[in-house]
Order: sequence, then C-alpha cells, then structure tokens
Amino acid sequence: MEKINLKTNKRVELIDITAKIQSALAKAKINHGVCFIFCPHTTAGLTINENADPSVKSDIINTLNKLIPPDAGYAHSEGNADSHVKSSLFGPALTIFIENGSLSLGTWQAVYFCESDGPRPREVWIKIIKE
Amino acid sequence: MEKINLKTNKRVELIDITAKIQSALAKAKINHGVCFIFCPHTTAGLTINENADPSVKSDIINTLNKLIPPDAGYAHSEGNADSHVKSSLFGPALTIFIENGSLSLGTWQAVYFCESDGPRPREVWIKIIKE
Amino acid sequence: MEKINLKTNKRVELIDITAKIQSALAKAKINHGVCFIFCPHTTAGLTINENADPSVKSDIINTLNKLIPPDAGYAHSEGNADSHVKSSLFGPALTIFIENGSLSLGTWQAVYFCESDGPRPREVWIKIIKE
Repeated sequence: MEKINLKTNKRVELIDITAKIQSALAKAKINHGVCFIFCPHTTAGLTINENADPSVKSDIINTLNKLIPPDAGYAHSEGNADSHVKSSLFGPALTIFIENGSLSLGTWQAVYFCESDGPRPREVWIKIIKE
Repeated sequence: MEKINLKTNKRVELIDITAKIQSALAKAKINHGVCFIFCPHTTAGLTINENADPSVKSDIINTLNKLIPPDAGYAHSEGNADSHVKSSLFGPALTIFIENGSLSLGTWQAVYFCESDGPRPREVWIKIIKE
Repeated sequence: MEKINLKTNKRVELIDITAKIQSALAKAKINHGVCFIFCPHTTAGLTINENADPSVKSDIINTLNKLIPPDAGYAHSEGNADSHVKSSLFGPALTIFIENGSLSLGTWQAVYFCESDGPRPREVWIKIIKE
C-alpha cells in the first residue's frame, strides 16, 4: 500500500490528485492492472470529474452546500455533520484501470480529493493489482 | 480492457447495460473473479438498481432533477453543470463478482449507464481479474 | 464468495458490519490484498463513515430523508421509491485494502450496511483477492 500525503487549504475544496496517483503508479512498475484508491477519512471523499473548467469544481461544491448546508440543526456536535454526509455521497473508494503503465482516464477526467472539513493534513491510500 | 459502445437517446436516461457486460464477460472466459466497470465521461455515471418496474428509473431521474435542476445559476457555462454534479453522485466505477462465468447480481439488480447530458455516443470500459 | 447474513430492524438504519467483514477475512487467511464488498439489494447500499458518535448515523439518515422523502409523489407504486434512490446514492460496492490480515480502515471509519426499506433479512457478499 502506497500513501499519498496532502495538505488541504479550505473547509471545502476539490483537489486534483491525478498526478500524485500517476507518480505512485510509476514506482510500482505495473503495465496492466487495476489501481484502487481509498480515502481513510470520514469527512472527505474521492470523485472523478472534469479537469478543464474550474467552475465545475465550484458548481459541485456549491450544489452540495445548498443541499447539505453546514448548519441545519444536526445532532452531531462537532460542527461537521454536513461533512460526514458529503463523505458518504462522494464515497471513499475509486477503481481505475492501468494500461501501458498509465492511469486510463477519459479525456476530460481528473481524480479529486473531496475535502469537506479542512484545512487539514490528509492521506490517500493506493494499491495496485497486476492483471 | 474491453470497451462497450453505447448510443444514448435523451438528455437524461438510465440504460440497462447488464447484457452487454455479460457478453464481454463471456469472451473473457473467466469463471471466478471480479469484474470492474468504468465510465470515462464526466457527465454520466454508473449505478445498480431495480430491473423490473421501469418507474424506478424515472423516479431516480426525477428525484435527482428536482435536487439538482439543469438551470440553477451555475458558474460552468456549457449548460451541463447539473450533469457533472450527478456524475459525481452516481460515481464512475462499479465492482461486480463473477461466479461460474456469470455476473453475480441480486435478483432485482441490473447495471445502468446513467446518461446526464445526452444524447451522445458513449463508452463503458470493463476489466476482469481472475480470482 | 462469502455471504454475510443480516437482519435489519427498522425501515431506515445504518448497521455497522465491520466486525462481520473482518471475520470473513480471518477465514480467508490472506495477509495482503483487496476486499470487495457487494450489496445485492436495490433498496439498500453500503457506506463507510464515523464509528464513534452515533449521531453521525442519525444525521446521515435524517439528511437523506429530508432530501428524498418517503412520500413525494413517486411513480413506483411499492412505497419504497425513496429507498431505491438512496440505494443509488450510497452505491452497492466498496473496496477496502487488507494489510497483515486486517481491513485497513482510517481511525474513525466503520463499514455500514445502509438499510432503506427494512426491516428485512439481507445479505452482503464479500470477495478477497490476494495481492
């Protein structure tokens, strides 16, 4: 298992981690297989979405903030109940194919760490299985 | 990696791709293992849901349209910001077990391609790992 | 494939199944690999979230109930259309790493079965691939 270390900068943000995953992959020297990515945090998650127009990221963040506002009378007293809900909606795990030593993503896809209760130091775990 | 080609017919629809995945599986001749399914698009996704009453599909579509309407003052200017958000909520990847050469699904389950910005030609990628 | 049997107790609840998965893992005697978990039902799902304060579970349940209420004029006539929508939002599959014979989870993470149309007998399917 490889660990990627991140430092997030805001309470809520999407951080492109595609290059970091590709670097972990380069070390593994596996040409064809499957790359599993796991977020070990309960107030963050992982997603794949557009890598071009940054307004897609802000639309995702703002839409989720409208649906799941930070202050909506939650029972959990730490002020981050919304972050836990968002974590379950994004999900903690992604699976991406490896072909010719590279992540196989669609033309417009990047992998994002979905911070919902930052800023904090965070980790992303990676495991690669050979085909 | 196998590629399935699709042609979607509406802006938003759920298309049952179970039989197409099963065909890809038949070619692979693997009796026991894991089938990974990946959507390389950022305005579509994948899900598993009921295969019997088609109103389940329309309820899923209509509920998501109410929560994430196409026109809600988004920053992304291409008119498909809602499609990107839905893509992240459905997710891009599924993992299904293979037993005796067949996809192991529950009685009422089918695999759906979740088009959120069609109609378009689309792809679904498949990889199978032997147990 | 291993099967875990569950009996859910309420219409909507999150049930911690981490220990049951760990038991299935112990039988498999695989030290390093990947554990795939699959929910074969269309009105339930799987998620990973906080294992400490039980109010996180009720906040997740209540937030989803507000966004996707049980009675909102759905087309599906079985009274569980909301459960199908929730099933697609949680998702049917999880992937967790195995290191030294144990599930690799973050400090605050537990694996939850997300019942959205109980009480019922339910199953969770598990498959483990060696690294």
